[in-house]
Amino acid sequence: MKPSIPKGTRDFSPEEMMKRDFIFNTIKEVFRFYGYQPIETPAMENLSTLLGKYGEEGDKLLFRILNSGDFLSGISDKDLQEREPVRLSSLICERGLRYDLTVPFARYVVQHREEIIFPFKRYQIQPVWRADRPQKGRYREFFQCDVDVIGSDSLLNEYELIRIIDDIFSLLKIAIVIKINNRKILSGIAEIINESERITDITVAIDKLEKIGIEAVNEELRNKGIASEAICKLQPIIKLKGTTAEKLAGLEKVLSGSEAGIKGIEELRTLVSYIGSKALSAETELDLTLARGLNYYTGAIIEVKSKDASIGSICGGGRYDNLTGVFGMEGVSGVGVSFGADRIYDVMSHLNLFNEQERPSTQVLILNFGNEEIGFALKIRDLLAALKISSEIYPDAVKLKKQMSYADSRKIPYIIIAGEEEIKNNLVTLKLMSTGEQRKMNTEELLSFLKSEL
Amino acid sequence: MKPSIPKGTRDFSPEEMMKRDFIFNTIKEVFRFYGYQPIETPAMENLSTLLGKYGEEGDKLLFRILNSGDFLSGISDKDLQEREPVRLSSLICERGLRYDLTVPFARYVVQHREEIIFPFKRYQIQPVWRADRPQKGRYREFFQCDVDVIGSDSLLNEYELIRIIDDIFSLLKIAIVIKINNRKILSGIAEIINESERITDITVAIDKLEKIGIEAVNEELRNKGIASEAICKLQPIIKLKGTTAEKLAGLEKVLSGSEAGIKGIEELRTLVSYIGSKALSAETELDLTLARGLNYYTGAIIEVKSKDASIGSICGGGRYDNLTGVFGMEGVSGVGVSFGADRIYDVMSHLNLFNEQERPSTQVLILNFGNEEIGFALKIRDLLAALKISSEIYPDAVKLKKQMSYADSRKIPYIIIAGEEEIKNNLVTLKLMSTGEQRKMNTEELLSFLKSEL
Repeated sequence: MKPSIPKGTRDFSPEEMMKRDFIFNTIKEVFRFYGYQPIETPAMENLSTLLGKYGEEGDKLLFRILNSGDFLSGISDKDLQEREPVRLSSLICERGLRYDLTVPFARYVVQHREEIIFPFKRYQIQPVWRADRPQKGRYREFFQCDVDVIGSDSLLNEYELIRIIDDIFSLLKIAIVIKINNRKILSGIAEIINESERITDITVAIDKLEKIGIEAVNEELRNKGIASEAICKLQPIIKLKGTTAEKLAGLEKVLSGSEAGIKGIEELRTLVSYIGSKALSAETELDLTLARGLNYYTGAIIEVKSKDASIGSICGGGRYDNLTGVFGMEGVSGVGVSFGADRIYDVMSHLNLFNEQERPSTQVLILNFGNEEIGFALKIRDLLAALKISSEIYPDAVKLKKQMSYADSRKIPYIIIAGEEEIKNNLVTLKLMSTGEQRKMNTEELLSFLKSEL
Repeated sequence: MKPSIPKGTRDFSPEEMMKRDFIFNTIKEVFRFYGYQPIETPAMENLSTLLGKYGEEGDKLLFRILNSGDFLSGISDKDLQEREPVRLSSLICERGLRYDLTVPFARYVVQHREEIIFPFKRYQIQPVWRADRPQKGRYREFFQCDVDVIGSDSLLNEYELIRIIDDIFSLLKIAIVIKINNRKILSGIAEIINESERITDITVAIDKLEKIGIEAVNEELRNKGIASEAICKLQPIIKLKGTTAEKLAGLEKVLSGSEAGIKGIEELRTLVSYIGSKALSAETELDLTLARGLNYYTGAIIEVKSKDASIGSICGGGRYDNLTGVFGMEGVSGVGVSFGADRIYDVMSHLNLFNEQERPSTQVLILNFGNEEIGFALKIRDLLAALKISSEIYPDAVKLKKQMSYADSRKIPYIIIAGEEEIKNNLVTLKLMSTGEQRKMNTEELLSFLKSEL
């Protein structure tokens, strides 16, 4: 029977690794350029750290690690016989796998608060695990690339994150729209229509405007139980159009009665003014339907979509005013975004954006003619290594055709042939794989040729 | 209550990450230069892949992942009441965390045999997890850096691995001894003394020669139940001294009756002849007491020790002739070594080998004077970015002393001060953190100064 891996997980082949590394390195370099520093946290966290942070649904999706040794000791027969999986699992498992990078980061900040220099600009690129039903583009093990500033209220941080998003996707050559919203504006809307609890229903309905039209949207709101008066007040918001400045002006009129709403508009205006200071490659767009992680964000909400591939959001985040409160450290504001490396990979594959030339590879294969000739091959290899030219000696003295086909499959551009005849005449044959051309030369000519070519 | 992480796991701070990255990048670059290609495998493997591969003790050290959802369904009351942890754990857990990189690699090779180009030269740098008792230098989550060639018998591969070891530790500036042995020689010794099953006892005893002397070694062998005649035959082997060539000559006489032994000597001689083709930085040494992973290796055995820190082996491996056999793919020979990144880190810390200058960091901090001045600061930042100079604007307009102390803690070498007065006169003040010196200059002078300095 062929061995296999767990559902929803993946092996990465050398070719995939090279492409993934290109994405990770691009992201990392931009993070570093803006002064963010890396941290890493363990794959396992105590379940007490993770439970209750992702809602009831999230708790179910945590991978739990069975306690080592006699995990049943101390568990009563009654506990066993009740067969209550949630309760029993918390008795036999103390640890779980990381579900995202945000909660471990909050835990890290509280645990290491004495050593950290605030404002703390950190990035973190690690896999996370979720026991979700696997489907196209959704995995049980996937990588997040998070970048956050904690310990600063300034909107310059939001602006910096938008610049980082712009730089990264420019370098990856993915055309994007950066959608921006503010939680305080959503709170303001809920406030003026007296439906503070229904913000999600409202944004979901508004989001359908283009697809189903205003009448259908209003009907959906009615069906969700929103009062007629509230729906009436919502009309100017649903119909909001124009540039970001025009939208903000429109909103200002509607939200004039809400302190939170006014604050949200002010924050967005400041952010837009920063963005105006230098042209971005990306489009930015105020999107009032943007409400991701509503219970979590308190200020800016950011989401990035590819313009050329319909795959949902490829990056997103926002400001949270009390991330560390749950671990007993109050009043520390933070803002951050997370890049979805797996989705970015899928977009780049789909749009054919990976550059073959990016792939580092062996430059020269030295053919193996057997024990008599191996000393010469080793010498050539050392000479190439001294010039920082990456080469391999084919390890076995098998048929030359097989050795050449290895060079071909591995896309090695040059082959050095040094058999008995060549060695006797102090020559080598260099074969150029691109053209098939073969040239006889001495060692010095070989080195100076390859040095100039590579 | 302060949050914490599971016993035996670690957070890595920015400073630790920079040092770790230096190690990982050095290792990766050498692997790539020799033509090895990266792969990655999932953190979780099916337990059927892992169980039975690491001995009974290893099975106990596997971290098992509780099945999702109702993990008790299908489990009889009898199974529960028996309270048999090993049996029950295999009923409620289908997956476990990776214990090393070798078994997942074997599984990978068999699963992807159709796509792989053989000989397959792969490297893999990922964490592994073991439910070991945590102690100084031993963690439950730690990183392995494995490099293997599979699908080639040639001793050129062993030689290449030794060159890789030599290059990596030279770059890391760690002085090492590379100890070499061959499983076939150990088999030969066991064969000629008719004690094939006692090889471990014998090598453990021989290993004590320098410490306890020949008489005590022989007594230990007697106590272990080795026959007098066998001990007698072992004497020339125990007393073997001199250069590697001398030792091999001595061995050849003793092992002349063993086919395996002769083959082992021949292999070592070939390897030594390759090593002789170019001077290594490292010392190499034939060490007959080297017997790591005996049931596993079939040819060369390699182990690396630091000359200046006593911390056990920091790299090791060998040849295995049937790694993939357990997954149904017979007759594929491989050889590889694994670098212990955590121990290498400890050696480098202990010997003070990390270079402060290696740490990439923000070069310039632009102080924040508030809303009026922020436009100018943003402009300066954009000009620096265009020159690829990494800078940060302090996000909040707090006291300048606090902003400066941030630059100091983060080791940012230059501060740009552009307050109301400076902006009015179209000047900035540049502060050099190394000397405390402050210079007034215009923007052009600033850029050309920083460009020449950085």
